[in-house]
Amino acid sequence: MKKLINSPADLVTESIAGLGAAFSDLIKVHFDPNFIIRADAPVRDKTAIISGGGSGHEPMHGGFVGRGMLDAACPGAVFSSPTPDQMLEATKAVDGGKGVLYIVKNYTGDILNFEMAADLARSEGIEVEAVMIDDDVAVKDSLYTAGRRGVGTTVLAEKICGAATEAGTSLSDVAELCRKVNASGRSMGMALTSCTVPHAGKPTFELPEDEMEIGVGIHGEPGRERTKLKTADEITKILLDPVLEDLPFKSGDQTLLFVNGMGGTPLLELFVVYRKAHRILTEKGIGVARSLVGPYMTSLEMAGTSITVLKLDDQLTRFWDAPVLTPAFRWGI
Amino acid sequence: MKKLINSPADLVTESIAGLGAAFSDLIKVHFDPNFIIRADAPVRDKTAIISGGGSGHEPMHGGFVGRGMLDAACPGAVFSSPTPDQMLEATKAVDGGKGVLYIVKNYTGDILNFEMAADLARSEGIEVEAVMIDDDVAVKDSLYTAGRRGVGTTVLAEKICGAATEAGTSLSDVAELCRKVNASGRSMGMALTSCTVPHAGKPTFELPEDEMEIGVGIHGEPGRERTKLKTADEITKILLDPVLEDLPFKSGDQTLLFVNGMGGTPLLELFVVYRKAHRILTEKGIGVARSLVGPYMTSLEMAGTSITVLKLDDQLTRFWDAPVLTPAFRWGI
Repeated sequence: MKKLINSPADLVTESIAGLGAAFSDLIKVHFDPNFIIRADAPVRDKTAIISGGGSGHEPMHGGFVGRGMLDAACPGAVFSSPTPDQMLEATKAVDGGKGVLYIVKNYTGDILNFEMAADLARSEGIEVEAVMIDDDVAVKDSLYTAGRRGVGTTVLAEKICGAATEAGTSLSDVAELCRKVNASGRSMGMALTSCTVPHAGKPTFELPEDEMEIGVGIHGEPGRERTKLKTADEITKILLDPVLEDLPFKSGDQTLLFVNGMGGTPLLELFVVYRKAHRILTEKGIGVARSLVGPYMTSLEMAGTSITVLKLDDQLTRFWDAPVLTPAFRWGI
Repeated sequence: MKKLINSPADLVTESIAGLGAAFSDLIKVHFDPNFIIRADAPVRDKTAIISGGGSGHEPMHGGFVGRGMLDAACPGAVFSSPTPDQMLEATKAVDGGKGVLYIVKNYTGDILNFEMAADLARSEGIEVEAVMIDDDVAVKDSLYTAGRRGVGTTVLAEKICGAATEAGTSLSDVAELCRKVNASGRSMGMALTSCTVPHAGKPTFELPEDEMEIGVGIHGEPGRERTKLKTADEITKILLDPVLEDLPFKSGDQTLLFVNGMGGTPLLELFVVYRKAHRILTEKGIGVARSLVGPYMTSLEMAGTSITVLKLDDQLTRFWDAPVLTPAFRWGI
């Protein structure tokens, strides 16, 4: 196992310590339990947003903490849910009196622990709502999920909902907005290679040199099928067709096109995928009004990509464009 | 070879087409010869800046084109210098009447071709200066270089000099500023794995499972030595000690600390390296006033990192902080 780490046991704590040192103007890192909050938390009279999940998907979620996006992120061990006590402590640290929204990717551990944290927070008098993201069209159920998995739309929901809370949106309204974003986004991913979880010390799965996994999950969970390698254009179509058919997206729609890198795929290649995806959408009369390309929701060093398409309206576009100041997203400020 | 490409021959052209489609508000892409210019080029009465080099290092340089950074980038084939005609055409496209600065990483092909382009541009009446970046302390000469290689300081020079030209700095003054940045920055890198150049179809070099290359170049050129794998903290010290001794950096200095990812190393790990580097500097009384962490100057999917330390003064800090709006850097606007 070739990794820049000291020990698997210290990896997450040391990494968030580095994140905190690098961005001490934007965020504060709390240890034991581990969570990351914006530097000026709690923000009085603003609805707060918390997300979290297993580590290994960076910059998600710690890199999304800051003005205009998340108030806190709770990182678990690599590919493991954070615990309810982490979430509860983060909730208490960011609640500004208008309640807290949990944005939860649909994985069984995350769902259970965020539910438990919500109950604990409510018993301490903090209003909490939880919204689940389940945008992955690849499979119905999976290794760690009942129902669809939560993937790329999570990134977009956190940006859009974060902007809404900056604009004064209430807890119930931002929860409704988050459900709308989830209902408007669809994703599918693929892997060329596995990743290696540090504690395991060996690749999560084995892929022959001439094969790929279509519909892979962000923890290396199996997808729809293993097939022979294909060209980037063919792979793009294989991912995008089910995404577009599912909502369905149709001619005249305006969209945000998000080509995500799984961690080990060069940007050079992601833009080849973006080019083809943009063409497919354009040929169908679907407008690409906004774009995001890069490794935002990764699976350690896995090589591969996922494509997310989000149907935009004026409200979602305005909140996407709104100022944001976090380690991973910063514009307009 | 597992890559998201259609063919090695089309890779760069298709990738910059994707870049142009994703960021059509910021940049324009010209094909045959290939170059990327800011959308509003040429900017009248502003000194222009061009950089370029082999592809495979994205987001460098195409992702750095835009307001506050580069006026144009010339991408060559993967790990191959762009040609003088590319550079000449880019020069004509961005010259706003105050001349053009070439920021050139020290690789023999790049140096020769940018010199030739400068001669051609001057013969067409465009004032040109070229400044070489040679900040890599790992080796004196290398496979593709006489003298030190140009690495991480290039990214910082392009940001700082770009800001200076937005503030009205003349060609000769921005060239002097660029030499100052180069003189103030030092870097060293390492690799855990090789990368695979698409045309070659196989890894550039072989590294046993328990070894790493210290002082590696951004094309996989040999560095100082191959050693057994060590912990992240040990590796960080191995990279940082020669960087600090070379300038030398000393107690009381203020610095920008840049931990760069080579492409295949997760952000989770880069922050472990950053944490240790920040500690080493702090223990020596060297201040870390600014930070940059992420894959900005990559080597395709190589796993590894490089550390760059730049000595700051008020001028460099002010230009680093200045607004920038490019695909890879965007803040303050």
